[in-house]
This record gives sequence, structure tokens and C-alpha cells, in this order.
Amino acid sequence: MKRDSEEAVADCGTKRSGILLVERKYFTFAEPPHEMVLDSGARLGPITLAYETLGELNEDRSNAILVLHAFSGDSHVAGYLRENDERPGWWDNMVGPGKPVDTDRYFVICSNILGSCMGSTGPSSINPRTGRPYGLSFPMVTIRDMVRAQKHLIDHLGISRIMCLIGGSVGGMQVLRWCTDYPEMVVSAIPLATTTRHSAQAIAFNEVARQAIMADPDWKGGDYYDGPGPRHGLAVARMIGHVTYLSDEAMREKFGRRLQSRRSLSYDFGGDFQVESYLRHQGEKFVDRFDANSVLYITKAADYFDLEAGNGSSLINEALARVSFLVISFTSDWLYPTYQARNLVSVLKKNGSDVSFCEIEAPWGHDAFLLPNPHLDDLISGFLDRIYNEHCGQ
Amino acid sequence: MKRDSEEAVADCGTKRSGILLVERKYFTFAEPPHEMVLDSGARLGPITLAYETLGELNEDRSNAILVLHAFSGDSHVAGYLRENDERPGWWDNMVGPGKPVDTDRYFVICSNILGSCMGSTGPSSINPRTGRPYGLSFPMVTIRDMVRAQKHLIDHLGISRIMCLIGGSVGGMQVLRWCTDYPEMVVSAIPLATTTRHSAQAIAFNEVARQAIMADPDWKGGDYYDGPGPRHGLAVARMIGHVTYLSDEAMREKFGRRLQSRRSLSYDFGGDFQVESYLRHQGEKFVDRFDANSVLYITKAADYFDLEAGNGSSLINEALARVSFLVISFTSDWLYPTYQARNLVSVLKKNGSDVSFCEIEAPWGHDAFLLPNPHLDDLISGFLDRIYNEHCGQ
Repeated sequence: MKRDSEEAVADCGTKRSGILLVERKYFTFAEPPHEMVLDSGARLGPITLAYETLGELNEDRSNAILVLHAFSGDSHVAGYLRENDERPGWWDNMVGPGKPVDTDRYFVICSNILGSCMGSTGPSSINPRTGRPYGLSFPMVTIRDMVRAQKHLIDHLGISRIMCLIGGSVGGMQVLRWCTDYPEMVVSAIPLATTTRHSAQAIAFNEVARQAIMADPDWKGGDYYDGPGPRHGLAVARMIGHVTYLSDEAMREKFGRRLQSRRSLSYDFGGDFQVESYLRHQGEKFVDRFDANSVLYITKAADYFDLEAGNGSSLINEALARVSFLVISFTSDWLYPTYQARNLVSVLKKNGSDVSFCEIEAPWGHDAFLLPNPHLDDLISGFLDRIYNEHCGQ
Repeated sequence: MKRDSEEAVADCGTKRSGILLVERKYFTFAEPPHEMVLDSGARLGPITLAYETLGELNEDRSNAILVLHAFSGDSHVAGYLRENDERPGWWDNMVGPGKPVDTDRYFVICSNILGSCMGSTGPSSINPRTGRPYGLSFPMVTIRDMVRAQKHLIDHLGISRIMCLIGGSVGGMQVLRWCTDYPEMVVSAIPLATTTRHSAQAIAFNEVARQAIMADPDWKGGDYYDGPGPRHGLAVARMIGHVTYLSDEAMREKFGRRLQSRRSLSYDFGGDFQVESYLRHQGEKFVDRFDANSVLYITKAADYFDLEAGNGSSLINEALARVSFLVISFTSDWLYPTYQARNLVSVLKKNGSDVSFCEIEAPWGHDAFLLPNPHLDDLISGFLDRIYNEHCGQ
């Protein structure tokens, strides 16, 4: 039942007694000797996934939406974990009661990816065999491994068909991997601001970020958990990331050549321009919340992502022809430009899938998929509405 | 006199007895108490500029071409410094006997910029007051200060009118500064792959590069000249630079997702892809030839560059209306995109200057201005021909 939309907006955008509270849960599986076998051939277990759910699973378990987060995201997609939290989840503008991904109607699941550091097993987790953090002894994980782990969670939740998979960027890669690997479990999918294969330029940026981390002497070969860790290298890595998330146009509009807290040039290296302060701030903030080794592992998983590798595209697949797609790109996204989305669309169409495609006019670069945008809201809510009506009866 | 072109090509592209030998010279000026006053108000002296010349200055001293090098370039623009040198100067495909910038006809000068480390005074130079390298006690220099120093050299060479200024990237900024500051000395100018003001995105990349250097503990506040220096940070800074010098398309064509020296993914952080190896190699090579503090100073000079700042454009200037321009941009240059060149052209036209503009179709990104390109050759040689015939007629 959909609530009155005014009430719904008030419910989730502000902090009052009617606040949407969510709970972080944990699911552990692959206990030895039943470790999960990874793409590399390595075995990993036990594995814990942190996850959150919003809304209620309906009787025939047909209203599940799996949201896949991007590179540095987490399971906390919307609402508040505590009443006094300052900020809601990372996609609170999209997910919640009365919002495009309407939790009054859909059962929304979001889990932290394997290899991350936000509650799921990753390089900063304790290796039960040694009692110490894995560090670089953590096996390399791929996007497929992340999806493989999510599949365990979805099975655990008793869901055999996912009404829709939604994710942007690295989340979009997971969406596509879900579709190629478990097409019979997928009704529909919305890959946003993503690609079927990581380009040389995207690999290049990730490699520079990794080198920045590994060049920091406090990285200590990844075994830094009893020290300060590679704070400087991680900050530089994040700054590189942020340059790629914005666009030339976004930066011009957001900062231009405006000076930060001064009237004239400083003639020193303290930082003159707002764009410099912004990047430094983003770098410093990130150091307090994210693990440097997780950056190494997740960027590498993205770099390895390639649905076109080997003998023909993984997207050419009979079962996949029954999945409905809404593919979305953004005009100013130069990390995963529209030509890459068009390539995805053309392969999906060739495969006979039902595909809608929209390139949204937005100046904000790759970040656009996370920013409030009525056009994006309408596209997603309309698509979900159709899928729900077609596949979820009543 | 133009030589037979076949002979000329053989002369400069290969290493044989007829090799074009050039000599690095030094000019020192601004001896205390006559230091040069910089934009910041600081005084600097003595100042040495390393420079090279090719060809002969004609009798009426009207055939001088000043080539302005880019960020990490040097005075060695063409030919060989020693008979057994492996490689010629950085623009040997453009400058030499029978080449577009024909040293049989023109007198070509190229000097290393102030603040660099390739023979001219910069942060790695010995401060005569202390007997130790300047390090961060070197004053901040601007593009205008670089040009101011070059002006001393041109005066010293007895040249009052420069037939043409040519430079790409940071060299193009110097071209434009020459035009705004000494228009009466300039007959014509070819700014290539450059801008009238450094964009927020370009500042962002430079700032990340600077942070990578300054985050390296071996940087030691810039006072590292008795130690190894910030080798890791400098390598990362250079890798960032190289990503911006290429384009998405260039990287796709040059590297794609090809693996380096292996048949399958490594599942470790040693580097899988050719693009990773390329960037690491570029980073390591740079560390052996360039000073990290010079990177800080020159990037900052570029970031400060803004001909539109203050009370109206510096390009709106009566004397400048008598300068002829050939403005060139490259389709895939996303560091200084064509819209920035178009902006320059429109201001110059508004000012009444004679302006030709060409956007060259080239997939190689910002690097395109340095790569052999017959179209670029034709444009430059044709423009120089016209200017020579109009202004240097004997």
C-alpha cells in the first residue's frame, strides 16, 4: 500500500519521530570446509555479508529489489541506523516510502560487497586462521565473486526471483554479472552509469590510485592495521577518484577558478582554489571511513570486469533474453561514457532482451547517478511500476 | 636556403656523420642588486637560462622564432647535443633543416623555463646566499615571470622583433603571455593545445599531482637534495600527468585491455594490463630526469595562468591587434579542449587580430601536439612561410 506521498516525503527526508529506522544485519556462510571457491581458484570462508532490508517481502516473494552499491558504498542505502544519525543512507533520495524505489511496495535489499570494509568480509577482516587481519593475504575477488556471495544471501532470504536489480558504476557491473550468471533469478535490471568492460583509461586511473596507496611507506605491504595506515596515499587515491567522478563542466560550474578563503593568490603551496580545498577535504574524509586495502581490491575487481572477454559476449545468453532492462547513462559521465552504455544496449538487443535506454542530460559527470534528479526518478519509478504490474500480480 | 628535402630528412632523423649538432648555452642576468622582480613581489637573482639556438639570425634580425616548451620540456628542441646521443631534441620532427620550422631559413631559439631543472634557475639550483639548493625557499614563479626572463635573453641576443612564437600546452601559455606583455616585439604567434585560463579540472589534476609529491615522506618539505627525494610521489604525479596527456580513445587504441607479458589475469597487484606497465614505466623514467619541486612550481604557474582575470581580458589590447595568430587545437585533447581554443580565437578576433584557427582531428589526446602529423606540419610551415614573406622579404 502506497502512503500519501506528502507524508512519505516528510517521513524520509527529515529527522522527526516518524524517521525511517533500519537495522544492519549480518549473514555468515561458507564456513570451512565449505569455503566459497573464487574466480582465482582460491577458497574463502567464512564469509560475512553486512546487509540491510527495507519494506516487506510480499506473500509470493515476488517484490524483492536488490540494490548494488558502487565502489565505496555500503549496505546502508536509505533511512537512518540510529535516531540521532546526521545523515541517512547513500541513496535516500531514491529509496524509501513513497520514493521511486518505494519501500511501501517493494522489499529492498542492499548488502556490502565482498572485499569492502563496511561490515562484509574483506582485507581488513580477521583471518580466523591467523587471528590477524588478512591484509594482502586476502584473495583477489572479482565482480563475479561479489555476486556469488550476494547469491548466498538471496538464497538465505528465501528469494528465488529478484524483481529488479539496480546499481550504478561498480554496482552496475554487479547488476550485469547477476544477469549473466543467474538470469533465471532475474526479472529485470537497471544498470546505471556503467560499462560491460573496464576501459584502458578507467584502468589507468585505478592503477594510479593503487600506486598512490602502495607508494606510502605506511602501507607496509598491506600489513598496516596496527599502525596509522597509508593515510596520505589513500587521500591522494581518493582525490584522483573524485576528479573522475565530476566532469570538466561540473567543476567549472561548481568551482570555476574561485579562490578559497582569500582575496588574492597566495604564492605558496597551501592551496588557493576552491577545487583544491574540495579535493583535499574529500581525501581527508575518506581516510577516516575507508580501508586502503579495500580500495586496492575493489578497483582491481572493476579493472578485471569484462563481459566481452573470451569466447563471445557473456550477454549473449538465451535465459537473459527474458530479462527486461532499463539502461541509463549520463551525458557528462566520462568515466563510463554513453558510448559504452550504447554498446551494452546493442548487445542486449541483439540477444533479444526487452531493453529501454535513456541518456540523461546532466552536467555532473559520473556522480550524476547518485544526485537527485526528477528525470531519473521518473524513469526508475515508471520502469518498476511496469515490472511490478506485469510480474507481481494483484 | 632550403636544402634538398630528402637530404634534410636523412640529416636529422638518423645518426650519421651529417648529424645536426647543437650546443647548450647559458645566459645569466639579474645579478644582485639588480634582481628580477616577480609577480609575487619577490626578487630573484642571479637567474640563469639554459638555451639553444639553431640556424642563423639574418642580417636584419627578422627571422627569429622562439619555441616555448611545455611543462617538462627543456631547451633541447631539436638535433643532437653529442654525436652519440640516442635521441634528438623533443621536437625534432618539427624543427630542423627542411622541416616545417626550417632552420635553414629561420633562427630558432628555445630556452628552458624559469623554475625548471633542465639548466635554468629553479628550486633545485643553488641559492648563492646559502650555498644550498633553494628548495621551497625558491619564490613562486608565474608564466609571466617565465616570459619576463625569456625577454632578458631575447634582448641579450639583440632581437627586437620575434617573427614567430610557437608553443604547446604550458608553452602555449607562454606564447600568449608574450603577446599580451610584449606585443610590440611579436610579429606572429602559434599557440597549440593550450588555454587562456587553467580550468578547475586542470587545476584539480595538478593539485592531485602536487599532493602525491608532498605526501611522500622523502619530500621533506622540499629539502630533499641530500637524500633520495620523493621518488614514489613523483612517479605517481607523473602517472597522473600521463593519463591526462592521452585520451580515452588513444588508450583504447594503444592498449585496450591487453595483458602485459602474461596469458591470463594474475590475481595479484603486480600489474596485469599494458596500460599499467606503460604508466609505471613513465613514472619511473621521469624520476630519473626531473626534479619534484620543479613539478610543484611549474604546475602552480600553470594553475595561476588566467588571461581573463581582473579588469577585462589581457588579450584586448591595441598593440596585440597587429599580431598574426595561428591557433591550433586537437579533437581528443581533453586537458585543453577545443572550446577553450575557440574562446581564445573569439577574443582575438574581437580584438581585431589576424587569426587562423584549426582543430586537428587526432585521436591522441593532449599529446597530439608533439606527435608527427603531416597536417600540423603543413599548417605551421604554411603559416611561417606567409609571415616570412610578408615581414622578412629580402
